[in-house]
Amino acid sequence: MKIIADENMPNAKALFSHLGDVELVNGRTLTHEQVKDADVLLVRSVTKVTKLLLEGSSVRFVGSATIGVDHVDLECLAELDVAFSSAPGCNAEAVADYVFSSLSHLYMTKKVSWLNKKIGIIGYGNVGKTVYDRFANIGCQVCVYDPIKEKSRDFANFVTLDEILSCDVISLHAPLTHSGLYATSGMIGREELARLSAGVVVISAGRGGVIDERALLERHAQLDGNIHLVLDVWDNEPSINQELVAIADIATPHIAGYSKQGREKGTWMVYQALCHYLRLNLGVVNERDAISAGWISSINANAEALKEEMLARSVQAIYDVARDDARLRYKYRENKEKNVFDWLRKHYVERDELNTCLIRSHDNDASEMMGAIGFSVQINHN
Amino acid sequence: MKIIADENMPNAKALFSHLGDVELVNGRTLTHEQVKDADVLLVRSVTKVTKLLLEGSSVRFVGSATIGVDHVDLECLAELDVAFSSAPGCNAEAVADYVFSSLSHLYMTKKVSWLNKKIGIIGYGNVGKTVYDRFANIGCQVCVYDPIKEKSRDFANFVTLDEILSCDVISLHAPLTHSGLYATSGMIGREELARLSAGVVVISAGRGGVIDERALLERHAQLDGNIHLVLDVWDNEPSINQELVAIADIATPHIAGYSKQGREKGTWMVYQALCHYLRLNLGVVNERDAISAGWISSINANAEALKEEMLARSVQAIYDVARDDARLRYKYRENKEKNVFDWLRKHYVERDELNTCLIRSHDNDASEMMGAIGFSVQINHN
Ligand SMILES: NC(=O)c1ccc[n+]([C@@H]2O[C@H](COP(=O)([O-])OP(=O)(O)OC[C@H]3O[C@@H](n4cnc5c(N)ncnc54)[C@H](O)[C@@H]3O)[C@@H](O)[C@H]2O)c1
Ligand SMILES: NC(=O)c1ccc[n+]([C@@H]2O[C@H](COP(=O)([O-])OP(=O)(O)OC[C@H]3O[C@@H](n4cnc5c(N)ncnc54)[C@H](O)[C@@H]3O)[C@@H](O)[C@H]2O)c1
Repeated sequence: MKIIADENMPNAKALFSHLGDVELVNGRTLTHEQVKDADVLLVRSVTKVTKLLLEGSSVRFVGSATIGVDHVDLECLAELDVAFSSAPGCNAEAVADYVFSSLSHLYMTKKVSWLNKKIGIIGYGNVGKTVYDRFANIGCQVCVYDPIKEKSRDFANFVTLDEILSCDVISLHAPLTHSGLYATSGMIGREELARLSAGVVVISAGRGGVIDERALLERHAQLDGNIHLVLDVWDNEPSINQELVAIADIATPHIAGYSKQGREKGTWMVYQALCHYLRLNLGVVNERDAISAGWISSINANAEALKEEMLARSVQAIYDVARDDARLRYKYRENKEKNVFDWLRKHYVERDELNTCLIRSHDNDASEMMGAIGFSVQINHN
Repeated sequence: MKIIADENMPNAKALFSHLGDVELVNGRTLTHEQVKDADVLLVRSVTKVTKLLLEGSSVRFVGSATIGVDHVDLECLAELDVAFSSAPGCNAEAVADYVFSSLSHLYMTKKVSWLNKKIGIIGYGNVGKTVYDRFANIGCQVCVYDPIKEKSRDFANFVTLDEILSCDVISLHAPLTHSGLYATSGMIGREELARLSAGVVVISAGRGGVIDERALLERHAQLDGNIHLVLDVWDNEPSINQELVAIADIATPHIAGYSKQGREKGTWMVYQALCHYLRLNLGVVNERDAISAGWISSINANAEALKEEMLARSVQAIYDVARDDARLRYKYRENKEKNVFDWLRKHYVERDELNTCLIRSHDNDASEMMGAIGFSVQINHN
């Protein structure tokens, strides 16, 4: 079996070599000629998967190690009877880590507390659900707005957008959509922002354009700066609004989902899908070998003091979002790279997920909270 | 025995109550009236210890939980036959942690490597020696310039200032002096800066004024920004040069020495001195009870990969200087506090020292390096 894979797909060679001959290619310049006699094509979002590329080829399976599928012409794949699989949710844990690292930063540097506050989530997809579950499991009062999922049978504390806007922490995880009953473009506009109370934390890690940035700047001024902003996604990326960067507590270049393990999970999910398609036993490679261990495999946290500070210190030990914020600001000041935003994304300082780190603690309450926030836990009984 | 202590001296009540009746006072407004019938006076740098304050009082011992003694009239104390003790070196470990956190940040965000580079230290006092030893124990090529200590019998690789200026990493730990053969004021001026090579790392955590800041700005421009600046101390604090803040990789408000354990060590050293003065057995309180444990008591580091990255990730787990840098920049942008610099120092996010964290590793080489860099280590043999 001949497998063509994007050379930047993490682990692709190691994983897929068990299934066939893997040829690594530059995904940006892929041609029909190159895929013509392949059986499997593995891409990232830089490759447009079109009729032109595939028609007349022997490709039977296309895998994309991405959560989005905008680069793939799904209709044409169906027409050509080519199986397809992507990696929805592969970076949900990473984004949830980002959310809690940001809250930890605000707690440590500004004493903004979130543990006993009201949390509102917008969008209950793969990311929103993961974030929601963490808050809920920690014991927070959490609610979610997702008018589409609400009608499904998912169980969660669904509320109106109005109720979300009255929360102390608001975390956005909706996609950018321009049409339909629930189009999200500019959905958090002047009117909605007017409902935010002073001291609110707004975390935007879904898609830029959902918040009206001009209105946000105005509301920030109105509240005399008393609103804590964590911004990972921006209108008009990569040319982001520097006025907004200046007032943000945390400003990062659309990297909330960039964990090492998240990227590997993308490949792993496609690998599993291909095995399934081939009706293969999945025993050849197991998850442990496909997903890297973290730099810090375990920590012993001192649970004697304040729970919120213990959580913050532990999260920062694995991933401190201040590093990403400092780097973005430094690069924009230095302004050496032509396109700072994209350069930063391309040269991201890769981080581990919280779940790669085992928390050892004698305090069961503390361990439970640490588990809820995303760590691996183990309870000591001595 | 009556003991008057500054209310902001960490742990003072807990420690000194074993020796007498402790009365806590506001050190800024202390009067002769308040100390008149005391036996022991414990101060911080905010209290001027003068003849006016002490003459005619029953005070026999003055302790200052500080490394500096500028606020104390030592001659008058001698004259009045009052014993004195301060806490030299209590924050040396903290500053060394700062140095390695900064190097870790540069390594992670800019791939600036230091492990196999030439390191130059200026000033071989309590701090300089601690920093020197860490580099030496890690196995770095390190040299030091200290024309005063050079003549003593200390063993170290003493070199000329010229040789220091040719190093890849230069760490300044000299005091600010304005007179004498080796006055440090402006000692790193235009001529010295001209000798720095492109790509050099300059860490300034001794005293502002030792580097000529205008000349530094010029040299930075000359080298087209290719010089990595870590600045904790500044000319003209608290009104620091914002142009310099803008080009610094790391800018912090004179907090390199601000670890929780460092502050406690200050009190602890004075406590020991007083016990010694009173010819008491030191058994009453032991160091373990006087110095706090850290938030993260141990970590298991994954030593399989690159040593320099393992060191960086582990250091950042306990103290990431990016947090302090982000906070300074945020506060200056927000500019809500009248005096940002002093406000930041007063409301510092307290950090633990690396030595509070035990590194568990199966790799003896890795453990040795971790020990050298400042962690507590323990070698596993299973
Ligand atoms: N910042 C990052 O690095 C990063 C990482 C991962 C995902 N994302 C983005 O975050 C978004 C969510 O990702 P996901 O994987 O959870 O996607 P998903 O498709 O699983 O979930 C999106 C959810 O948003 C809901 N939604 C749609 N319109 C809505 C509206 N008007 N109001 C409230 N909810 C609405 C949908 O019903 C769905 O449940 C996507 O746009 C994704 O691209 C960003
Ligand atoms: N940034 C911070 O938070 C922080 C923390 C601790 C100390 N400090 C400062 O760092 C400096 C060093 O602290 P320390 O505790 O090591 O003091 P120290 O007195 O123990 O050591 C100072 C050393 O500098 C040497 N020195 C004097 N003139 C010199 C010159 N011209 N060239 C080279 N070396 C010279 C002295 O000989 C001495 O060995 C002090 O000024 C102190 O105030 C700053």
